[in-house]
Amino acid sequence: MQQRKRSGGRAARRQSRGDGAGSGPTAAIWPGIKGGRYAPLSQVEIGMIDRTAMRILEEIGIKRATPHCIQTICAAGGSLTDDGRLLMPETLVRDVLQTAGRGFSLCGLDPVHDIDPSSSRTHFGTSGAAVHIIDSLTGQIRDTTLRDLYDMARLAQQLPNIHMFQRTVVARDIADPREMDLNTLYACLKGTSKPTGTSFGAPETMEEAVQMLTMIAGGPDALRARPPVCVSTCFIVPPLTFAEEALGVIECAAKHGIPLKLVSAGQAGATSPAPLAGAVAQQTAEVLAGIVYVNLLNPGHPATFGALPFVSDLRTGAMSGGSAEQGLLMAACAQMARFYDIPCAVSAGMTDSKLPDFQAGYEKGYTELLASLAGANLIYEAAGMYGSLLGASLESFVLDNDLIGSVMRATRGFEVTEETLSLETIRDVCVGGAGHYLGHVQTITRMESDYFYPALADRRPPQEWSAATDKDLLERARLRTRELLARPGPDHIPSDLDRAIRERFPIRSL
Amino acid sequence: MQQRKRSGGRAARRQSRGDGAGSGPTAAIWPGIKGGRYAPLSQVEIGMIDRTAMRILEEIGIKRATPHCIQTICAAGGSLTDDGRLLMPETLVRDVLQTAGRGFSLCGLDPVHDIDPSSSRTHFGTSGAAVHIIDSLTGQIRDTTLRDLYDMARLAQQLPNIHMFQRTVVARDIADPREMDLNTLYACLKGTSKPTGTSFGAPETMEEAVQMLTMIAGGPDALRARPPVCVSTCFIVPPLTFAEEALGVIECAAKHGIPLKLVSAGQAGATSPAPLAGAVAQQTAEVLAGIVYVNLLNPGHPATFGALPFVSDLRTGAMSGGSAEQGLLMAACAQMARFYDIPCAVSAGMTDSKLPDFQAGYEKGYTELLASLAGANLIYEAAGMYGSLLGASLESFVLDNDLIGSVMRATRGFEVTEETLSLETIRDVCVGGAGHYLGHVQTITRMESDYFYPALADRRPPQEWSAATDKDLLERARLRTRELLARPGPDHIPSDLDRAIRERFPIRSL
Repeated sequence: MQQRKRSGGRAARRQSRGDGAGSGPTAAIWPGIKGGRYAPLSQVEIGMIDRTAMRILEEIGIKRATPHCIQTICAAGGSLTDDGRLLMPETLVRDVLQTAGRGFSLCGLDPVHDIDPSSSRTHFGTSGAAVHIIDSLTGQIRDTTLRDLYDMARLAQQLPNIHMFQRTVVARDIADPREMDLNTLYACLKGTSKPTGTSFGAPETMEEAVQMLTMIAGGPDALRARPPVCVSTCFIVPPLTFAEEALGVIECAAKHGIPLKLVSAGQAGATSPAPLAGAVAQQTAEVLAGIVYVNLLNPGHPATFGALPFVSDLRTGAMSGGSAEQGLLMAACAQMARFYDIPCAVSAGMTDSKLPDFQAGYEKGYTELLASLAGANLIYEAAGMYGSLLGASLESFVLDNDLIGSVMRATRGFEVTEETLSLETIRDVCVGGAGHYLGHVQTITRMESDYFYPALADRRPPQEWSAATDKDLLERARLRTRELLARPGPDHIPSDLDRAIRERFPIRSL
Repeated sequence: MQQRKRSGGRAARRQSRGDGAGSGPTAAIWPGIKGGRYAPLSQVEIGMIDRTAMRILEEIGIKRATPHCIQTICAAGGSLTDDGRLLMPETLVRDVLQTAGRGFSLCGLDPVHDIDPSSSRTHFGTSGAAVHIIDSLTGQIRDTTLRDLYDMARLAQQLPNIHMFQRTVVARDIADPREMDLNTLYACLKGTSKPTGTSFGAPETMEEAVQMLTMIAGGPDALRARPPVCVSTCFIVPPLTFAEEALGVIECAAKHGIPLKLVSAGQAGATSPAPLAGAVAQQTAEVLAGIVYVNLLNPGHPATFGALPFVSDLRTGAMSGGSAEQGLLMAACAQMARFYDIPCAVSAGMTDSKLPDFQAGYEKGYTELLASLAGANLIYEAAGMYGSLLGASLESFVLDNDLIGSVMRATRGFEVTEETLSLETIRDVCVGGAGHYLGHVQTITRMESDYFYPALADRRPPQEWSAATDKDLLERARLRTRELLARPGPDHIPSDLDRAIRERFPIRSL
């Protein structure tokens, strides 16, 4: 039986009375619900994958390390092969794992939204680099813009079951990579006071971003104490090759204490092995290499374990983010991260469908449930993403908020106690009682604490629904989205700070 | 690591090459995939529910037992209270459970479709008593007919991931209850040679149906050896009240050796306690009462454990079959049935939505996955049902077949062996190899065995999809359904037998 945490209760209550998505003393779901009742891998299998990952690092190694990386890792016991592969002996990896960063929080600009990604506590959020907005009414696609990103951040801010907001779409209306990265970061932070995430193409841009973050935080110490962004870096080009610029990003993060999401995202059958066990093993090895590097640079650095093996449809070679295999792979990686006791970042909800239809619903439903039941701490890509991450949909956010709420409710399980077993209530009702539980005091007191009520899901009986004028779920989602976006943006960044940032950095107006 | 069973392989191969849904030596999914990697209840919690169920039967008991039932159970150690409640002491229940029916198969008219509902082997099928067909194009509803039922049976016959066909819709075009029940049974059997299920309003009609089944089987002994139907009986009107006619159905089944699905379907907060633990406890007690009765009448009788606690939306009192709580309840009941080692029948896929949309997808996705991961042997209501079982949709079957296939693939998990861990393949590829796994012999050999390929799910990239003329998944489902229904019906009932049945029973032409 799990207890909800008290912290965060007031804010969530303030935010969402009545749809069961808050975390007041009687709410049915809350951020950080513990997963872990589902284990795709046995302890023996976890050990086999761990040993394979260690052998990959010790015997095969990773190529294209930068001089600074080679120097750092060789000084700690690594070595370089004649053909330039950086080997890390098991003893080095295990030593570093002892002192690796754990127990840290991901902070929002408003502390009420802080996330504690420890144990098997689960949270849901966005992520992606979609390049298309897909119109679910017409099927037309258009380029994603900075405005789309800001709007999605504002939706995430208002939807209680989206707990963090990593960049979702590429601001294709900004050609310059540096300007795009800086605007992307600021659009996220301005749109939501929940923990955010983004990425940087070049370490130099990240250095600039740190200056912006320092202004927002109120100084370097304040930034180090409560960094409001987790930098996602695909520091590996699978299989087993470092991405040079990304190693620079890791170094910059290590210097300033900015949390990292260390990502290796191979595609099984293309850039990682086709058997799922092999895909997990390779990705585990790759992420461990990043964990080793950042912890040698900054022992105990806050970094999440982003082993993200993706799936190829082997008939075409294209990614299939909505496949069952995809859900399984992420659940297994959550187990590996928990084995190392490092906060775990996975991807789920990456449907192959192009719009919120039946396929999107079931693919999102089962992949998010698999990750959550397995106890993944941070479930990214869980809202708004379509076409295996190539597309995004604004009106999906309100639908995903319902879906995530249901997955959270399922993940919670239920409490078995003398009281909930209800023997005396059953006796009351059946022996000389009303003969039913409707209106019973137990039923009334349990209504909010035991049941989640989605906001948009339709529970009307068929005849009532058939006669209604608001039958179409997608249309209801569009209306609700329009309502949420018509509200003024949040005001957690004061206008003088906003002005100062715009004076110093090339920030576009929205 | 689980092995697929060899039996059934040929037929499934014959049926569905190429979509990964068969069970040839290289297929990714097969009927009877083992679940059980997910456990919503701990062993301690299972014990607490078990003891509560025993106390319910021993201390509170069940009212409205018939004289024959009272006599049978009191002769074995039960007793009747002054206010007419039939009590069953724990010793009686535990004794009967020792010798209760287990290890039996559910037979199809074609043995290749037989189901072995033992251990944590999972199977998916239909069930329901929907009264509306909902047009997913117009939102219009109409009455269900015998033809709908026959068409759905024919769809189930052709779709490899639907393993059994229990009656889905009420033949509302037949007013007379006896004629309706006999026609319902025959439409199921004529439409599919997979294991079927139906129910009977009166024991007398069931006696007639047994005569029809005897003709089809080729004699009473042949029927007893391979009964092609499992009779579903809601023998309890929750809370803790027997349904008189249904006890007669149990007696008829016991006499003829016809398998039973013993169902108690309370609604939490209305006819069973609102706390989920209490709902599971009451339903467990109720189903155990049926297990006791049928096994006293016919020791070892083939009966499945149909504890089906449904969910009320406590704001309206209406059923919510698509809720997360619903999925949890069924997963927990699967654990209870496995605790008693009795084949388990649950419901999943009962969406609240009225048509195959985003909501339907996710509600079906997570409820079916929860049941399957928990190791439920027989997952009913998994195809075609809408509006919390009030409605049905023909075109949903082909969509559900894809969804079920994905859930089966997720349930299977993956094998961790020296070979699948792929250390040597990774070495080959990375050290002097191609640098990727595309076209690697391991990738090619794993393509069919490790990955499931849905038939209708859309995996095209956004731009290709946007330019296509077949963008709409529902429209593709309608076309595919029309194709399947345009094929001639199956011919497993020879025409002379068909004629003889029509001469003797009031069977409508279709």
